Amino acid sequence: MTGYATLIGIVIGVSLLGLAVAALLAMWVLRKDRGSEAMQKISNAIRQGAEAFLRRQNRTIAVLAVVVAGLIFLGYGVLRNHRDFDPVGSSLELAMWITISFVFGAACSMFAGYVGMWISIRSNARTAHAALSSINKALRIALRGGAVSGLLVVAMSLLGVAGLYALVNAFSSVEVVGKIPMLIVGYGFGASFVALFAQLGGGIYTKAADVGADLVGKVEAGIPEDDPRNPAVIADLVGDNVGDCAGRGADLFESTAAENIGAMILGASLAMAADKAGLGFSAGIVGVMMFPLIARAFGIVASIVGILYVHMDKEEKIDPMTALNRGYYVAVVLALAAFGGATYWLLSSDEAPDAWWHFFLCGIIGVATSVAFVYITQYYTEHKYRPVKSIAEASQTGPATNIISGISVGLECVAIPVVVMSGALLGSYFLGKAAFPAAAGVNAGLFGTAVATMGMLATAAFILAMDTFGPITDNAGGIVEMSQQPEEIRRKTDRLDAVGNTTKALTKGYAIGSAALAAFLLFQAYMEEVLNYSGGEGTIFPVDLAKPVVFVGALVGAALVFLFSSWAIRAVGRAAQAIIAEVRRQYAHLPRQNEMIVFPDDFEPEYGACVDIVTKSALRRMVAPGLLAVLGPIGLGLLFKWLFVTDTDPLISAEAVAAMLMVGTIGGILVALFFNNGGGAWDNAKKYIEAGAFGGKYLTAADGSTIKNPTHSAAVVGDTVGDPFKDTAGPSLHVLIKLLSTITLVMAPLFL
Amino acid sequence: MTGYATLIGIVIGVSLLGLAVAALLAMWVLRKDRGSEAMQKISNAIRQGAEAFLRRQNRTIAVLAVVVAGLIFLGYGVLRNHRDFDPVGSSLELAMWITISFVFGAACSMFAGYVGMWISIRSNARTAHAALSSINKALRIALRGGAVSGLLVVAMSLLGVAGLYALVNAFSSVEVVGKIPMLIVGYGFGASFVALFAQLGGGIYTKAADVGADLVGKVEAGIPEDDPRNPAVIADLVGDNVGDCAGRGADLFESTAAENIGAMILGASLAMAADKAGLGFSAGIVGVMMFPLIARAFGIVASIVGILYVHMDKEEKIDPMTALNRGYYVAVVLALAAFGGATYWLLSSDEAPDAWWHFFLCGIIGVATSVAFVYITQYYTEHKYRPVKSIAEASQTGPATNIISGISVGLECVAIPVVVMSGALLGSYFLGKAAFPAAAGVNAGLFGTAVATMGMLATAAFILAMDTFGPITDNAGGIVEMSQQPEEIRRKTDRLDAVGNTTKALTKGYAIGSAALAAFLLFQAYMEEVLNYSGGEGTIFPVDLAKPVVFVGALVGAALVFLFSSWAIRAVGRAAQAIIAEVRRQYAHLPRQNEMIVFPDDFEPEYGACVDIVTKSALRRMVAPGLLAVLGPIGLGLLFKWLFVTDTDPLISAEAVAAMLMVGTIGGILVALFFNNGGGAWDNAKKYIEAGAFGGKYLTAADGSTIKNPTHSAAVVGDTVGDPFKDTAGPSLHVLIKLLSTITLVMAPLFL
Repeated sequence: MTGYATLIGIVIGVSLLGLAVAALLAMWVLRKDRGSEAMQKISNAIRQGAEAFLRRQNRTIAVLAVVVAGLIFLGYGVLRNHRDFDPVGSSLELAMWITISFVFGAACSMFAGYVGMWISIRSNARTAHAALSSINKALRIALRGGAVSGLLVVAMSLLGVAGLYALVNAFSSVEVVGKIPMLIVGYGFGASFVALFAQLGGGIYTKAADVGADLVGKVEAGIPEDDPRNPAVIADLVGDNVGDCAGRGADLFESTAAENIGAMILGASLAMAADKAGLGFSAGIVGVMMFPLIARAFGIVASIVGILYVHMDKEEKIDPMTALNRGYYVAVVLALAAFGGATYWLLSSDEAPDAWWHFFLCGIIGVATSVAFVYITQYYTEHKYRPVKSIAEASQTGPATNIISGISVGLECVAIPVVVMSGALLGSYFLGKAAFPAAAGVNAGLFGTAVATMGMLATAAFILAMDTFGPITDNAGGIVEMSQQPEEIRRKTDRLDAVGNTTKALTKGYAIGSAALAAFLLFQAYMEEVLNYSGGEGTIFPVDLAKPVVFVGALVGAALVFLFSSWAIRAVGRAAQAIIAEVRRQYAHLPRQNEMIVFPDDFEPEYGACVDIVTKSALRRMVAPGLLAVLGPIGLGLLFKWLFVTDTDPLISAEAVAAMLMVGTIGGILVALFFNNGGGAWDNAKKYIEAGAFGGKYLTAADGSTIKNPTHSAAVVGDTVGDPFKDTAGPSLHVLIKLLSTITLVMAPLFL
Repeated sequence: MTGYATLIGIVIGVSLLGLAVAALLAMWVLRKDRGSEAMQKISNAIRQGAEAFLRRQNRTIAVLAVVVAGLIFLGYGVLRNHRDFDPVGSSLELAMWITISFVFGAACSMFAGYVGMWISIRSNARTAHAALSSINKALRIALRGGAVSGLLVVAMSLLGVAGLYALVNAFSSVEVVGKIPMLIVGYGFGASFVALFAQLGGGIYTKAADVGADLVGKVEAGIPEDDPRNPAVIADLVGDNVGDCAGRGADLFESTAAENIGAMILGASLAMAADKAGLGFSAGIVGVMMFPLIARAFGIVASIVGILYVHMDKEEKIDPMTALNRGYYVAVVLALAAFGGATYWLLSSDEAPDAWWHFFLCGIIGVATSVAFVYITQYYTEHKYRPVKSIAEASQTGPATNIISGISVGLECVAIPVVVMSGALLGSYFLGKAAFPAAAGVNAGLFGTAVATMGMLATAAFILAMDTFGPITDNAGGIVEMSQQPEEIRRKTDRLDAVGNTTKALTKGYAIGSAALAAFLLFQAYMEEVLNYSGGEGTIFPVDLAKPVVFVGALVGAALVFLFSSWAIRAVGRAAQAIIAEVRRQYAHLPRQNEMIVFPDDFEPEYGACVDIVTKSALRRMVAPGLLAVLGPIGLGLLFKWLFVTDTDPLISAEAVAAMLMVGTIGGILVALFFNNGGGAWDNAKKYIEAGAFGGKYLTAADGSTIKNPTHSAAVVGDTVGDPFKDTAGPSLHVLIKLLSTITLVMAPLFL
């Protein structure tokens, strides 16, 4: 029996260590030189735009969150009557804990996103300046800047769960310790609520600015990308920060929070069942329930070592990606070793001596799945392989065939990930199931899938550091370009920027893989919860698709994914049109020759106006898809409760909601893969052509003049179409999947 | 008690009447004038191409069907052991009946497709010629030509089911009459097996020719659409016949066949349950089981009257669509009246006097659903409404925004149909459930959904006539264009062609709506069958998504839809490239001026070469997606049987297959709606611009010269992308959905 105090002490201690390291890394980054005045000027403009957007976005989200918190409190405390099986003694106490955890989760998620952006907009110019002297320095600044956000997100999510747990344990009237996780599920919902709007708002912002700047700048005015004469160019650079850093930070924060709580619920339920069957774990119920948090704490330590290990060779000849990969593998190996230790420590049972290593194998499956996803993403989005090549080839017959072949690649790329996910899910389930002797009647299969998820998430801090690395190097490249540094420096930042593109694609693959594996864990947590609140513990609660009401729930879940994606994509289109109108307004008075703009030397575009317009537009347009995602599941649950719940079938609404959740998740995973990989493939098909394939960017005409290569123009169309796919709709779907889980977890008692 | 002989007599009698009317209509059409020599020459070229393709396609499909028939026989007769609950006494007899019905279904489906095309390629020139004198004449020839195919398909499908039933009843060793439908499920599988390849092959053919002809003709050579100098133009016209007529004929044949059998299975099971509960239907078990066939027979009569009623006003001023609609409403009203009569006659129960009108209401729900789908399709694909307008508007900023906004419309358009389907499903389920007093314990809810499906399909013959009307008028327009008739005649055929485009879109909406409603019916038939073959009659067989194995089945089902769509779309792209290469070869030796081809007066393109290439290409490329659809579900079922079936969970593989079927169907419905409506909206956005919106096809430059309108060019890109969506992938998905049902129905016993 391992004591509660020891366990919670370790978790809180390691979380604080993670925060301390994040603070040290931040100070290390901030001590670096901010670069020349020209660099600082651009960096400041980016910083102001990003901070202004995030401030306004957070204000909007805060208002929405307060309304939702109020509704949760009303729903639990007033509308719903207390039942015997509730974890605490009164409706009001239940309402209070769930509302507190919601508000706390929302606040933490908002803070995580803010800090991610805060450090990123301060690392960009420092990375640019460091590139003047050495790639190694630039690489380390960018990665450590990213690591601030990565460590902070993971440590804070852990600290929040552990802190809430300790709070509830100390002050609530809960009697069964295994029911504590049910009181803190609001934390996950709060986190994903904020993450959804942050990812939507940031995603719409970044792609509206990107598409708008490209269409009006390159196409209409004929000026190159990142040209300072384009009034939308600062908005574009701001977008990288608010979309990729702030959005992704909030996203990963909620992932880890929701999955920790889900795994705790399953662990508690398994430990109780094992106790009953006389196969109790030596670490006790609390030990098993705390296992997810301990495993994650060890993962933080492993990630810190990995991050600090990253460096280039002395001559700076190796690919910077190789340097990152080496650090990643250090983190993976350490995390695996620690994982093995944690399973042996907390998941051993004297009566079932094989249990712990079965769970350890589940963890290895999780890690292997994350590696597999990384390779699959590379196959579908790198120009070395067939898919991207086929798109580039199809561009020769124009934009229509480019689009057709990109959509075909996007639709195809779901197959292998589905096979990998299925294998991981079934493998960890049956390994977990075999952990206890069959005769004992204890099924640890579901907990096996939870352990696999924990394995996959062990190195989340490192992955997130690599993800934030992307926009930092992207911005650094933009700053170097706009401050007109020598060609040689640009080549250095280009090398880093290319690595950043790769890491961004890889983390998307990782995010969707972990979402898929975690989804099953969260379904089960939902089912456990429904059984708990309905007093049916130990009975079976099937999600029977053959019932018409349940089937309709499933159908609605899938349709929700389509409608949500449609609105997210449309928002980008509309916001981009607002940008285009503004740039046209600024260009309207300029002199023209042959319908081409002749820029006067003293032309100073108003960057601020574009930033302002896209800020307003993104904030307005994120509301509709966000509310759809939040209100859809709640509305369905309440409507079906009102229409179909009878004494003979009291769980029918909860069952329909479960089907909506599961099939919505399946749809979300597939559609997100389609968006992410399709968009990535289009992007790289364009880059492949720009690198010289199929004639490159320009051709030489018969008379010797340089003309645009129509193959490249066709590929640009695909790239533009792919932008909102891969950076708005896809990432927002990651959040949607988790939001569906956390929202149903929190709302389940109201559907009964 | 209504006698078996009377019922089967009525069904067979009406089917023969339908065939006789089809023959009379065919003779009526064939007596019309075939037009001028120029018209006949073009029509003959189309006929030869279409017949050659269909001959070769049918040969390929026949080979595949024979292999599958052999496998079915082996699977049932040799590999599977006889069980006590089997409907007949020996494995070999079971194998024989199922194989016979498969072969018979396949042969009928092939024949139905062939006849549809046969009459269509003979009606086109006659319609063109009739247009010289009067729209009314042309309209009636085209519709009646279409009706030959419509009546034949529906009557033959009915005759086949009834005939097989009579055959089994007379010669097999089956003892329980309610188990007969289980012996003839092979009929539906055979029909959908052929329909899948027919729709895939035809769909790839028609769009490869269309896209190829457009890209190389319009874009590269700068000649207008349907220009006789384009070597691919005849292949394009052939495509309309083999894709829309032959493919759709086989598709609707299998729909009606599979749904009839499914409804019979549910009817038999309900009637047996009602008997047990002492609430027996006055028409007996046979009466209820035969109800679907009787309802369909009455529907044929109603459709005949409606078809014959269609005519223009004397001055030919009304919209031809109005004339069609009037005929349709006549058919609907008659069908409803007959439906009411049939429910009163066969679904009355003395002990449950309210039963029959509950079922009648279910039928009305079915009819209302089909009407709703027609309106929804119009909203999303007609230029009068927001969706198409928004695409046209977005074309102003180029092809990328055109594509983004089209995809957004396509993703959005699933929402309302899902609400309508859900309402229809739940409405008919609960109406059916309330048909018997609650205390009796007889749940007729599922049969209620079956009756709604029958209501929706009542006017199938009329709908199919309108569908085939499309390619006939399309071809007639092409013939008028190519034989260079006066402008005034072209205007007439244009009016008909526009109506044909509308009817084609509407029937797609109808097809997906009926597929959705029918899907639930077929799931239930599958569940009944599994219970029957496993000896678990009367017990519950939940499809529990919360089991990992079942969840993986669901995931694979959804992924199958994506992969299948990807391969179908890619096939079009590849086959189009083959066409482009061939046209370039034919143009290679032509003289050029300023890189533009100067056609010599005596230039005679080799149409045959293009027809030949696209024929080969379509046949080769239909195999992979077709086999994926057939082998995927079988492979999953057998693999899961081998891996997971244990004594404690003997149905786990059947359960996972059920989840695959259901979630695959959900995915198929949504993705098909996306493809159909997205493609239709792109098409009409282009037409809207061609009609003058946003500047029309050409603009006037500053110097007075005519230049291409870039908005129109952008819309053309969307139209081309939409082609394989709406005419290859979408319609193939309709068939895939049904194939999943029929294949699992037939293979279910092998997964136990």
